[in-house]
Amino acid sequence: MNKITVTGFRWAPPFAQGLVRDLRVRWALEEAGLPYEVRLIDIADRNSDSYRQQQPFGMVPAFEADGMGLFESGAILHHIAVDSEALMPADRRDRASTVTWMFAALNTVEPPVQNLSVMDLQQSEEQWAKLRRPGAVDAVKVRLGALSAWLDGRDYLVDRFTAADILMTTVLRLIRHTDLVAEFPVLDAYVKRCEARPAFQKALRDQMAEYARNTPAAA
Amino acid sequence: MNKITVTGFRWAPPFAQGLVRDLRVRWALEEAGLPYEVRLIDIADRNSDSYRQQQPFGMVPAFEADGMGLFESGAILHHIAVDSEALMPADRRDRASTVTWMFAALNTVEPPVQNLSVMDLQQSEEQWAKLRRPGAVDAVKVRLGALSAWLDGRDYLVDRFTAADILMTTVLRLIRHTDLVAEFPVLDAYVKRCEARPAFQKALRDQMAEYARNTPAAA
Repeated sequence: MNKITVTGFRWAPPFAQGLVRDLRVRWALEEAGLPYEVRLIDIADRNSDSYRQQQPFGMVPAFEADGMGLFESGAILHHIAVDSEALMPADRRDRASTVTWMFAALNTVEPPVQNLSVMDLQQSEEQWAKLRRPGAVDAVKVRLGALSAWLDGRDYLVDRFTAADILMTTVLRLIRHTDLVAEFPVLDAYVKRCEARPAFQKALRDQMAEYARNTPAAA
Repeated sequence: MNKITVTGFRWAPPFAQGLVRDLRVRWALEEAGLPYEVRLIDIADRNSDSYRQQQPFGMVPAFEADGMGLFESGAILHHIAVDSEALMPADRRDRASTVTWMFAALNTVEPPVQNLSVMDLQQSEEQWAKLRRPGAVDAVKVRLGALSAWLDGRDYLVDRFTAADILMTTVLRLIRHTDLVAEFPVLDAYVKRCEARPAFQKALRDQMAEYARNTPAAA
């Protein structure tokens, strides 16, 4: 791939910093050793006609490479990973497992985790959120319990680090404001193991540096 | 692929019939013209150790082909589609778009749709659900509006029918008990167009016939 551009937000409010999904793409590109440019947009730009052409739901990340546009963090990671042994093993069976766990991270684990995250970070003053929170926590624990059982005795979701671990780790980070992951020692160790990777540290540092540089005067 | 086995539930309660996710895999296999066997399990079996080995979260579908096990409807459809021109175009750009829309269906559209579906079908007596419902409907409409804008003037998500349309159609079916899709004529026509396909009709008919055959005496 050449001429890679990742679109992210110029700035995000503190509660969201380190959780915005272009982090997934930056991390994957760092693991793959692929140079890239970052295009920063204002949050308001997400609704512009031109951005919606590129990302129909007005979210980040969007991605361009080889003159081709993509969106959805899962799809972008898949696109990077299929050509990068660092993110997806060559063995056919391991490739299928990697894709399986990519979808599991985004379609089985993320929905309840994201629900709780949004509820706590953006809706906590709502009466329904107060009533719903215990059930939402239970729904997260069901998934974390199953994930912990799978990871018990394993360092990564597949036999070695893959793109699926990038997605799963960033999903679990969405509830960093709770002790839920820490309640599962296997998961706690897993997230720390993945976050310790130099590629993650670099990607996070770069994203946070841009937010720091672009902090609005009023924030 | 040979010796394909899809795992589904022997029976599901009426509110869930036609929504259980092995329908996605059956539909894809019918489109691809691949013969398959169905392995039916009781809902209670989902928590057995042996099933959790195959599907760590205890959900359906699970999938076996060529002696290899997979789970997650998205990953299974991807696995089938990469070798089937009926589900994924050969062109590199169209393949990337197909994968993009597969993830969009499952990670951007399904979460709010599934939220509302579970709330209405299983949690409607809860006080929090009554308070939350208007906001949950709004969250769905945001996604349906963006999807409708994309599909306006298009028959399918990519230039032609792909695996992404199977996922998106089955996601939109999760709120078949509401008028929300009908409020967007473009989406209404899209779902009807996809559901009219013989492969969908066959897959649904087969799944429903098994439920009818296996209805418990007490139900």
